[in-house]
Amino acid sequence: MSDLLTHSIVEAGRWIDAQGWCPATGGNFSARIDNASAWVTASGRHKGELTPYDLLKVNLKGQPIDSVLKPSAETLLHTALYALDENIGAVLHTHSVASTVLSRLEASDSLLLSGYEMQKSLSGNQTHNTTISIHVFENTQDMQVLADQLKEVWTVTPLQWGFLVRGHGLYAWGRDMSEARRHLEGLEFLFACERDMMLLNR
Amino acid sequence: MSDLLTHSIVEAGRWIDAQGWCPATGGNFSARIDNASAWVTASGRHKGELTPYDLLKVNLKGQPIDSVLKPSAETLLHTALYALDENIGAVLHTHSVASTVLSRLEASDSLLLSGYEMQKSLSGNQTHNTTISIHVFENTQDMQVLADQLKEVWTVTPLQWGFLVRGHGLYAWGRDMSEARRHLEGLEFLFACERDMMLLNR
Amino acid sequence: MSDLLTHSIVEAGRWIDAQGWCPATGGNFSARIDNASAWVTASGRHKGELTPYDLLKVNLKGQPIDSVLKPSAETLLHTALYALDENIGAVLHTHSVASTVLSRLEASDSLLLSGYEMQKSLSGNQTHNTTISIHVFENTQDMQVLADQLKEVWTVTPLQWGFLVRGHGLYAWGRDMSEARRHLEGLEFLFACERDMMLLNR
Amino acid sequence: MSDLLTHSIVEAGRWIDAQGWCPATGGNFSARIDNASAWVTASGRHKGELTPYDLLKVNLKGQPIDSVLKPSAETLLHTALYALDENIGAVLHTHSVASTVLSRLEASDSLLLSGYEMQKSLSGNQTHNTTISIHVFENTQDMQVLADQLKEVWTVTPLQWGFLVRGHGLYAWGRDMSEARRHLEGLEFLFACERDMMLLNR
Repeated sequence: MSDLLTHSIVEAGRWIDAQGWCPATGGNFSARIDNASAWVTASGRHKGELTPYDLLKVNLKGQPIDSVLKPSAETLLHTALYALDENIGAVLHTHSVASTVLSRLEASDSLLLSGYEMQKSLSGNQTHNTTISIHVFENTQDMQVLADQLKEVWTVTPLQWGFLVRGHGLYAWGRDMSEARRHLEGLEFLFACERDMMLLNR
Repeated sequence: MSDLLTHSIVEAGRWIDAQGWCPATGGNFSARIDNASAWVTASGRHKGELTPYDLLKVNLKGQPIDSVLKPSAETLLHTALYALDENIGAVLHTHSVASTVLSRLEASDSLLLSGYEMQKSLSGNQTHNTTISIHVFENTQDMQVLADQLKEVWTVTPLQWGFLVRGHGLYAWGRDMSEARRHLEGLEFLFACERDMMLLNR
Repeated sequence: MSDLLTHSIVEAGRWIDAQGWCPATGGNFSARIDNASAWVTASGRHKGELTPYDLLKVNLKGQPIDSVLKPSAETLLHTALYALDENIGAVLHTHSVASTVLSRLEASDSLLLSGYEMQKSLSGNQTHNTTISIHVFENTQDMQVLADQLKEVWTVTPLQWGFLVRGHGLYAWGRDMSEARRHLEGLEFLFACERDMMLLNR
Repeated sequence: MSDLLTHSIVEAGRWIDAQGWCPATGGNFSARIDNASAWVTASGRHKGELTPYDLLKVNLKGQPIDSVLKPSAETLLHTALYALDENIGAVLHTHSVASTVLSRLEASDSLLLSGYEMQKSLSGNQTHNTTISIHVFENTQDMQVLADQLKEVWTVTPLQWGFLVRGHGLYAWGRDMSEARRHLEGLEFLFACERDMMLLNR
C-alpha cells in the first residue's frame, strides 16, 4: 500500500513539473496513510525528479516519524487538511504563473468562477450554471498562522477542492491522488480561462 | 477493423492531452463503426491515459451495446452527428482555453473567421479569401436539448468541421479520425490567432 | 547523400511540429540536391509524422522527377528560392500563431526588428544595434503570382533569412538545413518578442 | 570530476532547450573546475544538442586551455563572475522571451520584484515580504566593456542570483549547477509573473 502511495506522489511530481507548476524546487505533495499519518515530500527537492527516498512519513502535527529527512515547511497545511476532513486522501501544493498572478489581482478573499463547463471537474458540481468560490489567504511565512486561519475559515464553511495563497500558489486536494490531480488540473484550467477573460473582456 | 478504430481513439487522446485540450477528464471522442453504431469513450476517464478498455459501443441513440460501461454524458451529441451526416466517421470533443474563452466573448451564435491561410485545413476551403462561420450553441446540461438544437440548425444549413458550445469547448469531426484531427488542430490554431488578433488589434 | 538530405527534412518536421509551427498538415520543407533539383514534402502529409516516403524530387520549376507523389502547392516558392540564390540549401515554410498574427497587423510590406541580441542568430548580423527588415507579401492562392513577386523584389534587393506571407506564415532558409533551422528558430523568437512588446509597450 | 561537470552542462542544455530558453544556438553555459579554470560551451552549438565534445576548458581570462575550439563570445562574463566570487560554481546564460522583453521595458538599471513566494527560490531569501533587485545592463557587443561594468557594479554591491542584459537575456549562477538551475528557473518564473502583472494590472 505504501508503495502505491509513494509511487502516486512521485508520478504526480513528474506530471506537475511537465505542466510547469512546480518550478525551482517549489511545491509539495502528500498522500494520507491512515488516520494518524501521511507521506509528504522532503524539503528542497525538485518535484520533477522525486524518488521514493525523497518522501517521509509525518504524523498529523507535521512531525517526522522514523525519518531524518526534513519535511517541507508547508507540511503543517497538508496535515491540517487531513485533520479537518477525513475524506481527504491526497494534497497537491503547486506554483503556477496563473495562480500566482490571479491571487494577487483578486482584492477580496474569494476568487469567484462561473459559467465554465470545467467547473464540473470539481466534485459535487453538476452544472456550469453556478458560481464557485476559491478562498484566497494572505501569504505568510508563519505556517502555524496560516493553518489556524484555515481551521477558522473551515469551521464556518468547509472549503472544497482547493484554496489559493496570495502571490504564492494553489493547494488542491481530493479523496485520493487521482481526484486531487483532477481538481488541480481543473482549477488551473479555470484560472487560465479567467486570466484570458480579464485580458480580453475589457 | 475495430482494433484500428479503438486504437485511433486511444492515440487521439494521447495527442490531444499533450496539447492541453482535454484536462481533468474533460472531453470525449468517438469513431463510427457502421450505420448503426460507434465506439465512444466511457465517462470519467482521463483522456490522456485511455486504453481500449475505456471504450464502449453505442447505438446511434447513444445507448450502450453489450457493455456495462457508462458512456460520456455527451455521447448523444456524437451520435446525433453520425445520424445527421453519413460521411462523418469520427468526432472529437475537446476543452481548450481558447475555445472556452472565445465562445464566451462571442455575443452572437456564430464565430466568424477570415483571411487566414489555415482556413484551408478545413475540408472544402481552397482559399484564405473567404469568411467561415463556426456555430456557437448556448451551454446546457440537458444533452437532449442540445442535440435537438443541433438538428434544428443542421436542417437549415448543415454545419461543417465543428461547432462551439459557449464556455464549454469544441466539437470537431471528419470523415475519419485523421480528418477529424486535422479539423481540430486547424480550428484550435485559428482560435489562437483570433484571440491574439483581439488582444493586439485594438 | 540523399539519405542525409531526406533524413534532415524528416527530423526538421518532427522538431517543427513539437514547437507547434506546422499544425493540421500545414507547412512544407525542402532541401536542395544539386543545381537542378531538390527534395520536397508531398502535399497533405502531417509534418510531424513524415517518413522518407512522403518526400519527392522536383526540378527547379517545381515539377516531380520520377515520382507519382503530388508536391506541396507551394513548391514553386521553394524552387524559386533555389533558383534565385545558389547558396540556399534548405527552405522551411511554417505556420505559427505569431507569424500569422504579426504579418496581419503589419500594414506595410516590411516588418522591422531592432535592438534584439537574437538578431545575431541571422547570418551576417554582428550586432543588436541595427534594424533588420523581413518582407511581408500579400497572401494569394496563385503561387505563380507570389513567385513572380518574390523574383521582382529580389531583383531590387535580395532578401535574407526569410519572408512572411500575410495571414499565412513564414518562409525561412539557409545554406543548409542546420542554418535554415537556426534562422527559423531565431525569427520565431523575434516574432514572439515583438508580439509581447506590442502588448506590453502601450 | 570533470566528467560530472561536463555532464551537468550537457544535461542543463537539454533541459533549458526544452523550456525554450536557448533558441537558435543562443545561450552559453559553464561550470568551474578550480580557482583558475572552467568548462564552457563552444561557440555556435545548439544548446539542446550538446555533447562533451562541444565544451572546452578556459582560464579565468576566458582563454582556451589545450583546445582548438572557439569559446562562446560571452565567455568573458562567465569567467568574470568566477573571478568576482569564489563561491560561484556554475553560470547559465539564457535567452527567454520574458527576460528579453522585460529587460527592454524596464527603463532603469534595476528590475524590482516583490511579494512573490517564488523569491524564496533565490538563496538567502526567507520571505516573500521583501523587494529584490535584478540589475539590468545595457547590451553591447564589447564583452570587455560589459565585464568591466559588471566588476564596477559588483564592487559597490555584489550581485546575487543573476543579472539581465537589455534586449539580450539573463545570466544566472549558483554555487553548483543545481543551484544555478534553481535560480534560473525561479527568476524565469518571476519574470513570467511580472509580465502577466503588467498586462493584467492596468
